[in-house]
Amino acid sequence: MQLLPGFRDFYPEDCALRNYTLSVWREVASRYGFLEYDGPVLESIDLYKKKSGGELVGQLFDFVDKGERHVALRPEMTPTLARMVAARERDYKKPLKWFCAPSFFRYEKQQRGRLREFLQLNCDILGDPSPAADAELLALLIDILRGFGLGAGDFVIRLSDRDAWMQFAMGRGVAQERVLDFLGVVDKLERMPEPESRRKLGEFGIELEAVRAFIADPSAEAAKLQGILADLKARGLEEYVAVDLTIVRGLAYYTGLVFEVFDRGGKERALAGGGRYDALLEVMSDGKVRMPALGFGMGDVVLGNMLEEVPAAKARRDAWIAARRAAEVYVIVAEEARRPEALGLVQRLREAGLRTDFALSAAKVGKQFQAAEGLGAQYAVVVGAEWPQVKVKELATREERTLPAEGLAALLKG
Amino acid sequence: MQLLPGFRDFYPEDCALRNYTLSVWREVASRYGFLEYDGPVLESIDLYKKKSGGELVGQLFDFVDKGERHVALRPEMTPTLARMVAARERDYKKPLKWFCAPSFFRYEKQQRGRLREFLQLNCDILGDPSPAADAELLALLIDILRGFGLGAGDFVIRLSDRDAWMQFAMGRGVAQERVLDFLGVVDKLERMPEPESRRKLGEFGIELEAVRAFIADPSAEAAKLQGILADLKARGLEEYVAVDLTIVRGLAYYTGLVFEVFDRGGKERALAGGGRYDALLEVMSDGKVRMPALGFGMGDVVLGNMLEEVPAAKARRDAWIAARRAAEVYVIVAEEARRPEALGLVQRLREAGLRTDFALSAAKVGKQFQAAEGLGAQYAVVVGAEWPQVKVKELATREERTLPAEGLAALLKG
Repeated sequence: MQLLPGFRDFYPEDCALRNYTLSVWREVASRYGFLEYDGPVLESIDLYKKKSGGELVGQLFDFVDKGERHVALRPEMTPTLARMVAARERDYKKPLKWFCAPSFFRYEKQQRGRLREFLQLNCDILGDPSPAADAELLALLIDILRGFGLGAGDFVIRLSDRDAWMQFAMGRGVAQERVLDFLGVVDKLERMPEPESRRKLGEFGIELEAVRAFIADPSAEAAKLQGILADLKARGLEEYVAVDLTIVRGLAYYTGLVFEVFDRGGKERALAGGGRYDALLEVMSDGKVRMPALGFGMGDVVLGNMLEEVPAAKARRDAWIAARRAAEVYVIVAEEARRPEALGLVQRLREAGLRTDFALSAAKVGKQFQAAEGLGAQYAVVVGAEWPQVKVKELATREERTLPAEGLAALLKG
Repeated sequence: MQLLPGFRDFYPEDCALRNYTLSVWREVASRYGFLEYDGPVLESIDLYKKKSGGELVGQLFDFVDKGERHVALRPEMTPTLARMVAARERDYKKPLKWFCAPSFFRYEKQQRGRLREFLQLNCDILGDPSPAADAELLALLIDILRGFGLGAGDFVIRLSDRDAWMQFAMGRGVAQERVLDFLGVVDKLERMPEPESRRKLGEFGIELEAVRAFIADPSAEAAKLQGILADLKARGLEEYVAVDLTIVRGLAYYTGLVFEVFDRGGKERALAGGGRYDALLEVMSDGKVRMPALGFGMGDVVLGNMLEEVPAAKARRDAWIAARRAAEVYVIVAEEARRPEALGLVQRLREAGLRTDFALSAAKVGKQFQAAEGLGAQYAVVVGAEWPQVKVKELATREERTLPAEGLAALLKG
């Protein structure tokens, strides 16, 4: 009986790490006024085929269900989001600022940082076409990473603009229907040998030098990015971003701003990425809903590896987990005859909101103290001969007091 | 593009309800010293076939993946838990008190309270065979329901003991290998016409009257339940439970205590159920791990319907949701020339931990106030001619003050 390859078990210590990630994602998104939503794990496969490009169809966990429906485990959120918003867009004031952080599934070749089931934060702003919305989303992305204790020395968001590239290409005679292919070449430019880049660009009648010059000085054609940078500067967040036109993003549906977050630790891992997809809702709703939109996705795997490596981030994470340790109070039954009284006390401590544990069966007092230490409890409360008084020991300082059991819950909670 | 039947979209207002349920589950389980774990959504189908009985195999969402593995979406947690614990049981002190609250998938006929994807809280205690562990799990179950604002007038936990039934049956000559079939008849007793019950019991050589007498007075053979009741009484929780030997539970793997929680509102819906499964880990691990265990499952669907119907529970839920409303502060840009200053202020408010929102594009001041009200914001902060002062309006009281923008975040956070 084994775990499937590419999937994870979350033992309590793993689950605590996962919950920390989810907690920071949720807390910062809420501060930004983003509302959490979610959709089903399973969708009709048509939803993924319909999305322009359908890039992920080859990586789907798809099958025919007992009702003869061709279905798939969700590989990404955007098609579900588009479906949901198209169905009820009139019920919500614009712009919508929504996020979710569920599991996604892709049948990928296994490699470091890639799993077949992973968590991904998705944050989207729908219904606002302005660079102000672009900046708001980027600010959120920055503050989420800062929320993990990562700083400007740890990551950078590289901004680019597909519109600028469209203008560049079409201004040089590339036909509109071939612009996506051209962007595909730009996307791979850094990974291809120079002669191959030169040959591929030649097919569009464009010189490699012209592309390089545009990347080196995009200012004239990427004025929009300047507006975004000015907005982020007003927020004091300019040090986390840099214009970099080599970023074009693989997916076909991006229209304007595109961006990727890179780890500055030398490993150049992408922590998150996103962009504008102003035309997608129209495609997905067969023309019924037109709504500008942009969003990003941030997976938990590369992020988790990075938090492990950056000492300040690791310290913050470990402190969060330690503060939620299993038990605050451990009740020690020193005399079995007093077990009913101990059970009553446990109940009152728990009702006061204290994380409280105790030994279910009779055990030596020393062993019960060990259990208390093992759980990281703050207090051990000994129920024995002194009843209705109890001995309360603060485990870190070894300080011990004898107190009435009555009212103890309120006292420890205080 | 439609949602699949039996699945749910969680729009923000639905997601808030779901998050409330998850929050109470997690909060109370933590108070009891239960640790959260999780497993993969997808498992090998063999895991579900292996479990004695394999009752849920007919309801699986199962398929063959791109690597020729026969896999299934998890229909329940116990097989995953058994697999995980069997693999690493030596790494954890006994007893293990673990919980999880993920999604499960069953291809069921659609009916009220049944979905094909649903959330279920699973709480288990592993490694302790005593009635003290039974009582600890039942106390947790009670306090979770009380945590939702449900009281003794709203629900009751009916306790039964499969061992008592085994002794009853075997004492009357039922062969060991037929005891499960006998329990199957008892399970359906209340739903079958009397002549059919009589005939079916006759096949085991048992009179209907003997069964009824045992149900009416189980005290002699169900002494274990008395121990559990005494424990719960010491905690002050006795009013939430009642012995009821008509409960036997459908699943084959239960061994001792079994129980179900019923809504007392007359609808007799089952809110949760569980029991002991002392032999299951041994079966699942091919004899490698022997560990007594018990647990319960509580779905989110019937529970959610009930919270909607019990006024005290609904009020508690709605208050929780209102306290987490979208925005605490709404920053109003009264003069567009001051937008950069407003952005800086938004950033400082958010950095102070305040849920803060604002209009991304220029809008009339009245419209911005409307947006603030619509989001349920507590404060509107107007950035305009008074800068570096701002007007701060408490929306509930209409009280307005003019204050320096500097230091405002700390003041409002106060």
